[in-house]
Amino acid sequence: MTGRRSSTATMHQVAAAAGVSQATVSLVLNNTGGSRVAESTRLRVLDAARTLGYRPNAAARTLRDGTAGLIGFVGDVVASSPFAGRIVEGAQARAWEDGLLLLTVNTGGDAGIEDAAIEALLSHQVAGIVYASMYHRKLTIPDSLIDVPTVVLNSEDAAGLARSIVPDEVGGGLAATQALLDAGHRRIGLINIESPSSGLPAAVGRAQGYREALDAAGLDVDPRLVWDGDGNPQAGFDGTLALMALEAPPTAIFCANDRTAWGAYQALETLGLAVPEDVSIIGFDNQETLAPFLRPGLTTLELPFVTMGWRAVDTLLNDSAQPDGPEQVSCPLVVRESVARPNRTAG
Amino acid sequence: MTGRRSSTATMHQVAAAAGVSQATVSLVLNNTGGSRVAESTRLRVLDAARTLGYRPNAAARTLRDGTAGLIGFVGDVVASSPFAGRIVEGAQARAWEDGLLLLTVNTGGDAGIEDAAIEALLSHQVAGIVYASMYHRKLTIPDSLIDVPTVVLNSEDAAGLARSIVPDEVGGGLAATQALLDAGHRRIGLINIESPSSGLPAAVGRAQGYREALDAAGLDVDPRLVWDGDGNPQAGFDGTLALMALEAPPTAIFCANDRTAWGAYQALETLGLAVPEDVSIIGFDNQETLAPFLRPGLTTLELPFVTMGWRAVDTLLNDSAQPDGPEQVSCPLVVRESVARPNRTAG
Repeated sequence: MTGRRSSTATMHQVAAAAGVSQATVSLVLNNTGGSRVAESTRLRVLDAARTLGYRPNAAARTLRDGTAGLIGFVGDVVASSPFAGRIVEGAQARAWEDGLLLLTVNTGGDAGIEDAAIEALLSHQVAGIVYASMYHRKLTIPDSLIDVPTVVLNSEDAAGLARSIVPDEVGGGLAATQALLDAGHRRIGLINIESPSSGLPAAVGRAQGYREALDAAGLDVDPRLVWDGDGNPQAGFDGTLALMALEAPPTAIFCANDRTAWGAYQALETLGLAVPEDVSIIGFDNQETLAPFLRPGLTTLELPFVTMGWRAVDTLLNDSAQPDGPEQVSCPLVVRESVARPNRTAG
Repeated sequence: MTGRRSSTATMHQVAAAAGVSQATVSLVLNNTGGSRVAESTRLRVLDAARTLGYRPNAAARTLRDGTAGLIGFVGDVVASSPFAGRIVEGAQARAWEDGLLLLTVNTGGDAGIEDAAIEALLSHQVAGIVYASMYHRKLTIPDSLIDVPTVVLNSEDAAGLARSIVPDEVGGGLAATQALLDAGHRRIGLINIESPSSGLPAAVGRAQGYREALDAAGLDVDPRLVWDGDGNPQAGFDGTLALMALEAPPTAIFCANDRTAWGAYQALETLGLAVPEDVSIIGFDNQETLAPFLRPGLTTLELPFVTMGWRAVDTLLNDSAQPDGPEQVSCPLVVRESVARPNRTAG
């Protein structure tokens, strides 16, 4: 690969000494972690780096020697989409660790711009291309990328030619449902972001995780408790009203995204019911402008955009193995105040 | 400027025939307008383009002749920030109209990455550089850009060397307050996003617009009705509780961003007051994941990110005049359901 520079070994040592992932070390040392890295973790990483005498050599070398090597990033609308843009942050952080710059082109989904972008990036000697999608789906990479080091990000290459990095939707759905089971809920509703029959991986995977968690707890899925929404607050509102009108309403609802959870809050308020005293709610995505500001704060699963971006560039630079299915990045549980023990026996 | 290609004249003719701006024509023909362009407008533009036989020649030429010309876009965190990323969409749309690609580097505010990015973009022969900031402020452009065609976007070049494109904060604050005056309100609160003493242009300008509108209506500013928040929902919540506890509470509140308005909604709900029946609320920003989904939908001023991005590239390609202060892009009023006539006499 043109322009590739190897990572220094001491980055691994810093991560091991601090007891954190390499991604976290990179975020801290590049000062791009923001509030996502706890202050105590940040101090531990800085301490480890100092003790081990670590210096981000590749980046320093680039500044000394001249023009940085390049990695291309082609996004349909990811670069201008709320939240998913965090992917770019993680990708740039990993690239800079090796003294590489990430050149991003936002195609808006226009095939003409995409062709021109790939041609331009290749003619400017990028080391490889990250091909990113706004939402998780199966896609076909353009022919022009077939012989180019390529990683598909936030989607799966349908043909299995390129390595792919996706969020672990099933694991996230399972963890969300498990958090409600652990709080003592047995009658748990699901308001999805779309019908799984659409094939949308987020809708399919999150619902599968829900079923697997109930199954492991020895509970059957009650189809009356499952509502196909559309990902908007209005669907969360309508779905919650419908679920709460059942003869045996749920004591907790897994909303398959935070926007749906917001609508659930609005519906419960209309019904004079409190979160979490009357009904527990868990979301998905951890939308930074929404989840912390709901009242009460929303417990949810985080879409790991920064880590995914980081992994995409890391994979491009380090892993040459052919893919054995996409790499699934786990979605961490973010605990706030919307889940509590059930205060009544339902079902 | 290297790589510059002139726009075809017929774009102007299409805009004139359809009775819309060139920006709108570009959004429609590049299919990047989304829900921001009304369907009736879209059809009118397509009809005019067909009637006049307009074809986006520059882009077609790029595809035929080979590699596209390039424009550099250096953003601190704008490329990965929610909402402000729309700037990239508008900039790419305008660039593509001339067959140019926008190469974006997200520096995360890191000076080392920024230096490397500018050097790399210049060595790859970009026609000019858009230097974009996440939030509206006064900044100093890097020395390396002084002799390069540069437009500062969403901020003002403090030294006045580079042309700057900023939102019209004063005009927006004036329009927001005027909308409340027009509905019959005379006792209007302001919850700002920061103290104007901070110098933050959005806080200073929006408050100035508020004062100017009251002044033009022959009303004095009552300092008890003005609350310095911090831009978060919690500040909107606290500010609203404080304003409504006054002996003569406001009948309407101008919240200087949508997140603050959300907190105002939450506080009014706590008080058992309804929007807009008891208190009218107007916001600022038109955050796409928030304003339409509040109940009732929030009337607000739109931060014109797409237009600003479009103007930045247009200015880079067409205007060589030295700046006479920054170009102010107006913030359109987006009417939803949060403003009504006052139902009681206050003050």
